[in-house]
Amino acid sequence: MELFFLGTSAGVPTRRRNVSALALRPTGQSRWFLFDCGEATQHRILESSLSLFRLERIFITHLHGDHVYGLFGLLASRGMHRCEAPLWVYGPEGLGEMLEAVMRASRLTLPFDLHVVPLLGDETIELEGLRVSTLPLSHSIPSYGFVVEEARRPGRFDPERARGLGIPEGPLFGRLQQGHSVRLPDGRTVHPSQVMGPPRPGKRVAVAGDNDQPGRFEPWGPLDGLVHEATYTQEDFDRLEVKYRHTTARELGIAAERIGVGHLLATHISPRYDSPEREQELVEEIRSHFHGTVTLAYDGLRIEI
Amino acid sequence: MELFFLGTSAGVPTRRRNVSALALRPTGQSRWFLFDCGEATQHRILESSLSLFRLERIFITHLHGDHVYGLFGLLASRGMHRCEAPLWVYGPEGLGEMLEAVMRASRLTLPFDLHVVPLLGDETIELEGLRVSTLPLSHSIPSYGFVVEEARRPGRFDPERARGLGIPEGPLFGRLQQGHSVRLPDGRTVHPSQVMGPPRPGKRVAVAGDNDQPGRFEPWGPLDGLVHEATYTQEDFDRLEVKYRHTTARELGIAAERIGVGHLLATHISPRYDSPEREQELVEEIRSHFHGTVTLAYDGLRIEI
Repeated sequence: MELFFLGTSAGVPTRRRNVSALALRPTGQSRWFLFDCGEATQHRILESSLSLFRLERIFITHLHGDHVYGLFGLLASRGMHRCEAPLWVYGPEGLGEMLEAVMRASRLTLPFDLHVVPLLGDETIELEGLRVSTLPLSHSIPSYGFVVEEARRPGRFDPERARGLGIPEGPLFGRLQQGHSVRLPDGRTVHPSQVMGPPRPGKRVAVAGDNDQPGRFEPWGPLDGLVHEATYTQEDFDRLEVKYRHTTARELGIAAERIGVGHLLATHISPRYDSPEREQELVEEIRSHFHGTVTLAYDGLRIEI
Repeated sequence: MELFFLGTSAGVPTRRRNVSALALRPTGQSRWFLFDCGEATQHRILESSLSLFRLERIFITHLHGDHVYGLFGLLASRGMHRCEAPLWVYGPEGLGEMLEAVMRASRLTLPFDLHVVPLLGDETIELEGLRVSTLPLSHSIPSYGFVVEEARRPGRFDPERARGLGIPEGPLFGRLQQGHSVRLPDGRTVHPSQVMGPPRPGKRVAVAGDNDQPGRFEPWGPLDGLVHEATYTQEDFDRLEVKYRHTTARELGIAAERIGVGHLLATHISPRYDSPEREQELVEEIRSHFHGTVTLAYDGLRIEI
């Protein structure tokens, strides 16, 4: 799976980071999915290689403005570009009502079917080759995480075994890799199972909304990738007069170690860390508790999991 | 008055132009006003010398998304930056209801008083040193123009007359220019009226929302500045299968000539003109009917009227 970070700031945009949005594209495909849609997400898409025409599903983690105010304009632009492919938008209760109010007041009509699906708890959404499971998180308002699992992938082709069976190198190798049985020049038939390893599990990546209990992902571990907020360092958070139920870098590191995360992608960075030096504080705090790969996400980052 | 063009595209953002927004700042002041607030207007403000803390009033011409979808995020950010100065938002009926629905769903509370004032027809809004008159326009939905008039300005100081009265050049010149009477070394008193010309009328600038009848500004002529859409060339408009009640470059040129416009600022440019060559077609079409100054607005343009 490819992840494109379109916005990685918390609360307000800065000159370097826009508010939350993340694109996920299954490797080798052109269709893609969007997680959260802060204001100006469509502007970031315009600067990327992603096309609104191939956007199939949008998942909104929660209804705070920095995660959803870009949805109205994105829908309007997809419509004005005359994209007719249907679009599904999943999000907490209240999303549909807000969308309707905005569309009614601004007289927005769309040339595509818009399916707004309210999230109500633990659910599983089956997409072609992918399964998305929803996970209620802990924040000041209802917030969700999404676990995206690829279907099992075929096993690896073993060229040694194929040669051992006397199969001539060339087109027959390709046919077997694609799952077809082949007939050899000497009349024997070889089946894929004779030259392919066991099916491999698909990758599993989780994308979290705002959340102060990253441990909620433990039952889903191990995860190949986890995209989760690390809004503050522990020290800064402890000093805040008003606390908004976010995860600190320290808490995220501890949880990721327990979950078993392959690649941890920390995002939703408070504007106070808007310099390379301060960003480094967040990374080091995570690393002192977590021993896997850590990347502090930035706008424009593309990662393959 | 200074005009800052923050967004000059019609309908959808392009890489070069964002959707509609225009800042107006009385010369020499830091307070300013915003006309329309398309998505990502706050991002454009972030890149400018304007501060959300000094934004006092917002005027929304009409409720199409490309003129208003940036309002939610701009309000939220002004609040998150803890700006406590009150803010007035003027706009067509339905604006308040839409804002309420979005604020309710996204649990947005603001640390400042937000006054949403519905526009109902011809109105006059008196601000300190400025008068804003509203003018209903002609579009597919209710749309307004705003005529901004400065209060009368003091006359010009005449240094020849001052010297003729025997006033020594220096601080006394400044006192007179500031409207104070002065006492000369020889005992005579000189009053400002003796050395200042007659009061000068303030500048008058009109800002239009989407509108297919630019002639509606004729009763307000002459205008020092007019910001008005020129969405298409006449030829392109005539070829459109579906027409959305916009003004062509030709129609704008003809109307501006009749109104008597000092500086015509054409904006709300269809994405089809997203090249210098195509933009030039719009300018030439306007110029073949209008003999004043014409500027095709672009994002980042700053003009003093």
